[in-house]
Amino acid sequence: MEGGAAASTPAALPYYVAFSQLLGLTLVAMTGAWLGLYRGGIAWESDLQFNAHPLCMVIGLVFLQGDALLVYRVFRNEAKRTTKVLHGLLHVFALVIALVGLVAVFGYHRRKGYADLYSLHSWCGILVFVLYFVQWLVGFSFFLFPGAPFSLRSRYRPQHVFFGATIFLLSVGTALLGLKEALLFNLGDKYSAFEPEGVLANVLGLLLACFGGAVLYILTRADWKRPSQAEEQALSMDFKTLTEGDSPGSQ
Amino acid sequence: MEGGAAASTPAALPYYVAFSQLLGLTLVAMTGAWLGLYRGGIAWESDLQFNAHPLCMVIGLVFLQGDALLVYRVFRNEAKRTTKVLHGLLHVFALVIALVGLVAVFGYHRRKGYADLYSLHSWCGILVFVLYFVQWLVGFSFFLFPGAPFSLRSRYRPQHVFFGATIFLLSVGTALLGLKEALLFNLGDKYSAFEPEGVLANVLGLLLACFGGAVLYILTRADWKRPSQAEEQALSMDFKTLTEGDSPGSQ
Repeated sequence: MEGGAAASTPAALPYYVAFSQLLGLTLVAMTGAWLGLYRGGIAWESDLQFNAHPLCMVIGLVFLQGDALLVYRVFRNEAKRTTKVLHGLLHVFALVIALVGLVAVFGYHRRKGYADLYSLHSWCGILVFVLYFVQWLVGFSFFLFPGAPFSLRSRYRPQHVFFGATIFLLSVGTALLGLKEALLFNLGDKYSAFEPEGVLANVLGLLLACFGGAVLYILTRADWKRPSQAEEQALSMDFKTLTEGDSPGSQ
Repeated sequence: MEGGAAASTPAALPYYVAFSQLLGLTLVAMTGAWLGLYRGGIAWESDLQFNAHPLCMVIGLVFLQGDALLVYRVFRNEAKRTTKVLHGLLHVFALVIALVGLVAVFGYHRRKGYADLYSLHSWCGILVFVLYFVQWLVGFSFFLFPGAPFSLRSRYRPQHVFFGATIFLLSVGTALLGLKEALLFNLGDKYSAFEPEGVLANVLGLLLACFGGAVLYILTRADWKRPSQAEEQALSMDFKTLTEGDSPGSQ
């Protein structure tokens, strides 16, 4: 454990984290249930290839991305470097799963002869994916790859945190747009007759928004931030930069 | 001016605020252009009543709500009470305009015999409106109505700020859902042929997301927060509570 001063966990934090995980898992399960019950399930080599898209995006760009943001709150007393590696790895998993989701929808469009990238959902989706990839690359170069100067890391950290949260929220918004698109394409006029599929998907949409809100709440609560250890880091920063390439402060 | 210690404005802040306002005004103008060029304009006593809905919501629940959140950054050196009244008033304007937007869409549905409140957009919209109204009422009771104890205000302030930002983001997300719904209803298959209306509306959607991001950035930058004046307030809190009913610290 690094920084012995930082040993306690705020009393309410575990409950909020547990609640966010319950929301996230319900989200994934409900997406699976929607696709299984009303959309015929998932298969790669058929028209059901499309259904891999929403499931991959909800698992990768919503649930895993959200959890990657929370590791600095959940593992607040673990070594900084371990937490950082976990943060980076979760984002890699999320990116790979999102890539499978992207391939699924482009494959489906090609199979059916549909146009690509005309809708607001697709524009936002591509934007999210590119921003997420760039954010990961820049984050890796600054914080995990050894060599970035301490001062540069300190200056970049708030930007990394802001853009991380923003990309996550944009992912949730894009998922909502996609859900809405799928509902209007599939249900048409039946949507306004309160069909069970429409109601289920609306509840799924509200859960998506709630998960986004829960992650944002845990992330922004000032007294839940990872303890700063700023003085300790400032004292040993030259040693740290030279040896383990670790970065200062909290995130 | 209250708290003479807080006189300077961060150098970059005015540029960011100007950029956000440029985005916001472009957003309102583009919504008007979309409705005027492609949707036949606005009239209350006809089927064009619907078009008052998107315009009112973009002006009220996006632009004005966003600006109301920024007053504590823009008027950082003005008296706290004046800034607070302006914050509350902008939210009242936003609420009233949003109410007109709500009446417009319910009126249009009644005229056409359409079902109400079946879509994800409408569920999110009602949620936003109710939360926004409750947030205003609670904010007013705690911060503007005299009598709330200092300690209660201090404890509630972070919640007020978090829920304010969250309701704003949910408003932006709901606007995106509504825009998407309007596009799919009106354009149908033509949407995938890159019709000018579809492209314009997609750009409008991206601008909505950018405005949300810009407001969030200005709001969350730690060094742009209104100067704290915590010590001064702590020293005089009893006097303040007894006399002007003002609240402590920054927001």
